[in-house]
Amino acid sequence: MLVIYDHHLLEISDEFRKWIQKFQFRYPVQSGEGLKDLDQFAGHVKKLSQLAEPMNSRKMTVLAVGGGSVGDFAGFFASVFKRGVSLIHIPTTWLAAIDSAHGGKTALNLDSVKNQIGTFYPAKQVVLVRSVLTSQPQALAQDAMGELGKIALIDGGSWVKRLEKSQRSQSDSDLLWDNLKNAIDAKMRVVIKDPVESKGVRQILNLGHTVGHVFETAFGWSHGFSVAQGLFFALEFSEHKGLLSEKEFDRAMRFLSERLGLAPDRPQQALSAKAFTSILSADKKRSGRDDVTFIFLRKFGKVERRSVPIAEIVSEAKRQGWIQSRAR
Amino acid sequence: MLVIYDHHLLEISDEFRKWIQKFQFRYPVQSGEGLKDLDQFAGHVKKLSQLAEPMNSRKMTVLAVGGGSVGDFAGFFASVFKRGVSLIHIPTTWLAAIDSAHGGKTALNLDSVKNQIGTFYPAKQVVLVRSVLTSQPQALAQDAMGELGKIALIDGGSWVKRLEKSQRSQSDSDLLWDNLKNAIDAKMRVVIKDPVESKGVRQILNLGHTVGHVFETAFGWSHGFSVAQGLFFALEFSEHKGLLSEKEFDRAMRFLSERLGLAPDRPQQALSAKAFTSILSADKKRSGRDDVTFIFLRKFGKVERRSVPIAEIVSEAKRQGWIQSRAR
Repeated sequence: MLVIYDHHLLEISDEFRKWIQKFQFRYPVQSGEGLKDLDQFAGHVKKLSQLAEPMNSRKMTVLAVGGGSVGDFAGFFASVFKRGVSLIHIPTTWLAAIDSAHGGKTALNLDSVKNQIGTFYPAKQVVLVRSVLTSQPQALAQDAMGELGKIALIDGGSWVKRLEKSQRSQSDSDLLWDNLKNAIDAKMRVVIKDPVESKGVRQILNLGHTVGHVFETAFGWSHGFSVAQGLFFALEFSEHKGLLSEKEFDRAMRFLSERLGLAPDRPQQALSAKAFTSILSADKKRSGRDDVTFIFLRKFGKVERRSVPIAEIVSEAKRQGWIQSRAR
Repeated sequence: MLVIYDHHLLEISDEFRKWIQKFQFRYPVQSGEGLKDLDQFAGHVKKLSQLAEPMNSRKMTVLAVGGGSVGDFAGFFASVFKRGVSLIHIPTTWLAAIDSAHGGKTALNLDSVKNQIGTFYPAKQVVLVRSVLTSQPQALAQDAMGELGKIALIDGGSWVKRLEKSQRSQSDSDLLWDNLKNAIDAKMRVVIKDPVESKGVRQILNLGHTVGHVFETAFGWSHGFSVAQGLFFALEFSEHKGLLSEKEFDRAMRFLSERLGLAPDRPQQALSAKAFTSILSADKKRSGRDDVTFIFLRKFGKVERRSVPIAEIVSEAKRQGWIQSRAR
């Protein structure tokens, strides 16, 4: 077992410090997008390869302990080291626990473009540890609500209806923990139909992400908050195009705000149309030279993929106040 | 279509120079192990990513035109760029045409250790062009005979028996071309049983390679010649351990020498036991701390995997004169 772990975890928990000592082969990393820089990868591999030297590579397992960036990096390493060794995730953030640790995506960044390099390499196991997850600051639980909202709107199954009808008295942490397994199962029902994203089906998981990623890049917002804002954008866009009835729109908005505590927001300074277009075009979800695949909501629990001209998304972003109107 | 091609091909053929101009997106590379250096990978990816910028990545195909190193590099790139784009191989050397282009292995090197990084990523198509292959120098055809011998000894099917009984009047090139499809089919019958080498079955394709790789590293011999010598080593070892009858040993030796023109050889200067052990131990085929998986021949067309102590292989190498006897 070769443990790749976020070294910040050492600072926040005595228990973790004791637990990690049980492993002979340990590689602490600094979490964040810098860890995923392709320029740094060869250096990491050399150190990891030296560390793994006494291990039998045919039976070797990489154990990734950390949030999304640690999982992306360790997963990519496991997928290419000696043409692939076993992988286990212990996600330590809500975002990783509810989303990135599942479904087999690994990733590195190329200069400023996120996730340009990667593999589909599902973990053999994902271990969810309640005490680790619930010990996170409240803000990180709130940040994961965007992803919970996304998968709930896509799935709309009985667990979502239960959640919709529930009284909101739980803490964000308890609400996440209680719905974690259902949310993961819902994601995996989509992933299993299109494990390597070759059929397009899996793209529905990008609900809220197409413009969410633009917000994340442009405003430096957290991934979770950006996705939440991307969901509101997608709902407004779906209704405006007549794809989503007013009733279903209201229902979805109520679910996100009253059940999950999310609220539409705007940046202090709107974007220029040029900046918005350029960030959107760099995204790998482009379906053609001037089009992107956008995920619309048709009703609560039903989404639809459509190829949309980038120009149309830009004008919708203007309508919604994300892009500044031209000064006279 | 993004073409990654060996730039040497420009020098050897007018036809190739004309043909390659038909492609809009071209990336010439310098073939050889340096191309596979992980330290250089990020730099290549940046240039390739820029080149591919106008392409629709969902429909993008990497076309690899070259020998083994070009195929390994381009295959690895295709397998991780945007989590995998389509891949087509046009192998331009006999070794690549008969072996490395098939079966989905891609690879990069970590410092001096070959193929430490890689993926299993089968090409969508492998295109074999007779005029390209037969225009190679005679020495390269001879060099591929080791791999042809290997797969023939493993398979032993009707095509091998036909080859065994044939009169040797053809040129090496014609012999290779005539048996190419059968040799590839024989390899793929093994690969299909164990596509990602998780069950061990696929390891039988390492016949002749375990010590062949040691010879390649230690003496700087070509891969093909090293494998041929590794085959002779495996035959001698198999007979010495009583796993291969004298009759079957003679039959296999006759096949390799009379049909394929291969002959046992020795280096001018034998290896030290220490050097032999250290190179063998660095190989990723290690099955345990002090063991490697060795492929024995049981009879013509039947092999057997066994975990063998490294010490036993070293003493066999001594017996066969590959390792120098200790000076008094």
